[in-house]
Amino acid sequence: MTAIDRNASLPENRAELSPAQARELFRNGLVGPTAGFSRGYAQANLIIVPKDQAFDVLLFAQRNPKSCPILGVLDAGETSGELLAGGDIRTDVSQYCVYENGVKIAEPTDLSEYWRDDLVTFIVGCSFTFETALMEAGISIAHIDAGVNVPMFKSNIRSACAGSMSGPMVVSMRPIPASQVSDAVRITSRYPAVHGAPVHIGNPEELGIMDLSKPDFGDAVHVPAGHIPVFWACGVTPQAAVMESRPALAIGHAPGHMLITDARDSRYLVP
Amino acid sequence: MTAIDRNASLPENRAELSPAQARELFRNGLVGPTAGFSRGYAQANLIIVPKDQAFDVLLFAQRNPKSCPILGVLDAGETSGELLAGGDIRTDVSQYCVYENGVKIAEPTDLSEYWRDDLVTFIVGCSFTFETALMEAGISIAHIDAGVNVPMFKSNIRSACAGSMSGPMVVSMRPIPASQVSDAVRITSRYPAVHGAPVHIGNPEELGIMDLSKPDFGDAVHVPAGHIPVFWACGVTPQAAVMESRPALAIGHAPGHMLITDARDSRYLVP
Repeated sequence: MTAIDRNASLPENRAELSPAQARELFRNGLVGPTAGFSRGYAQANLIIVPKDQAFDVLLFAQRNPKSCPILGVLDAGETSGELLAGGDIRTDVSQYCVYENGVKIAEPTDLSEYWRDDLVTFIVGCSFTFETALMEAGISIAHIDAGVNVPMFKSNIRSACAGSMSGPMVVSMRPIPASQVSDAVRITSRYPAVHGAPVHIGNPEELGIMDLSKPDFGDAVHVPAGHIPVFWACGVTPQAAVMESRPALAIGHAPGHMLITDARDSRYLVP
Repeated sequence: MTAIDRNASLPENRAELSPAQARELFRNGLVGPTAGFSRGYAQANLIIVPKDQAFDVLLFAQRNPKSCPILGVLDAGETSGELLAGGDIRTDVSQYCVYENGVKIAEPTDLSEYWRDDLVTFIVGCSFTFETALMEAGISIAHIDAGVNVPMFKSNIRSACAGSMSGPMVVSMRPIPASQVSDAVRITSRYPAVHGAPVHIGNPEELGIMDLSKPDFGDAVHVPAGHIPVFWACGVTPQAAVMESRPALAIGHAPGHMLITDARDSRYLVP
């Protein structure tokens, strides 16, 4: 098991690392949120379940495409694939969450002791993917500027159920200057495979979010005067369903600590 | 079991029928291809399998989104749903194909005698959906003008495998005037959930199609001088995989004889 180096600061050249270089750093013990890593490459959420739970998870994703856009699936027992060439899904994410009966029992940096040959890995799109496009359009991303994790909230929007899986939609929040909200919608709508357009703009209370300074996952960011809180569906949603639905075993990434894939962001851009 | 009236001519007002009215006609025995029915509403392919085969089919669809875009899934034993309000999946398609061990054993107009409570229904997008948009742009659709079924071919493009499921990509062909091919690409690319942009333009031989007058499914249409054969991925692809992969039981629609859904075409239009 790799030792955790929680004090290692994130590398200054993180935006320039290739996905393989970034995965190697995490494999070797770096722990931290991945926003801003490997600019131009898609990052991804994970949900890993035993084969007998896999249909329910895949159907849940099909019925909730805004929150759970599937980028790839590794067959039972497979640990690598086209999205992480030469990589290993058990080690290449900086931190994981292991759930038994819906309760988080561990946050390891390596899945070796939990791995089983019947585990199916779902690689789910992440809104970090469109952040490069937003920044190129002159829209600042508060959590990147602050060097923290994106704030995520369990909303009062219910996901569509699938078999044993049910739960709330998790959303990520970015404060956007009012004059740029239209651009943010327009740009992100062109990336439907990585959550696409926002699910809500402007009134956190309508999503059941009473205090933006207390995210359920990730870190709080300040919403400056003149900025509007904009909410996108988030790939932590399957983990929220795991917490509610209590399958015997499920594994996710630690929120904000994504798999950095070999796929270019542009692969997920629609015309 | 409903009597087959193969000689019933298709109703002249078929474009104006509501989806519910069209489904009622098919439930009551009308048999025929559905191109041109219920203008503005999405039509769909079917693939129905027992629950123990359902993960492989859903994963096959996830890995082959051009040919198998999933619009909806009915849970095991469910016979109706949001896409066919008040309808019954066992009766509302004009004709079905029943496969045992990959061999077509029946083409019933009613599934009552084959239905089981463990059957899961996958509703898959169909290129008929974008034909209205093509016609509105002034592009004629040969098989609609001729009142026949669209020609479909098993291509030499291999689908991505998923568990037990493998097979060739099936493609549909429409002759398009050379001057309008660009428009046809542009328009259909905006409908990714119903096969999207063409997979091939111009050289049938490269797809392993040696004779356009002998489609594997549907009817031949003439390719006039100055027209280019344009090929789109087709939702019969799961049935081609069934023929090759030989699951114990699978049911599809008869090619070209689609489920007419309550969803507007515009639901599947991206910006």
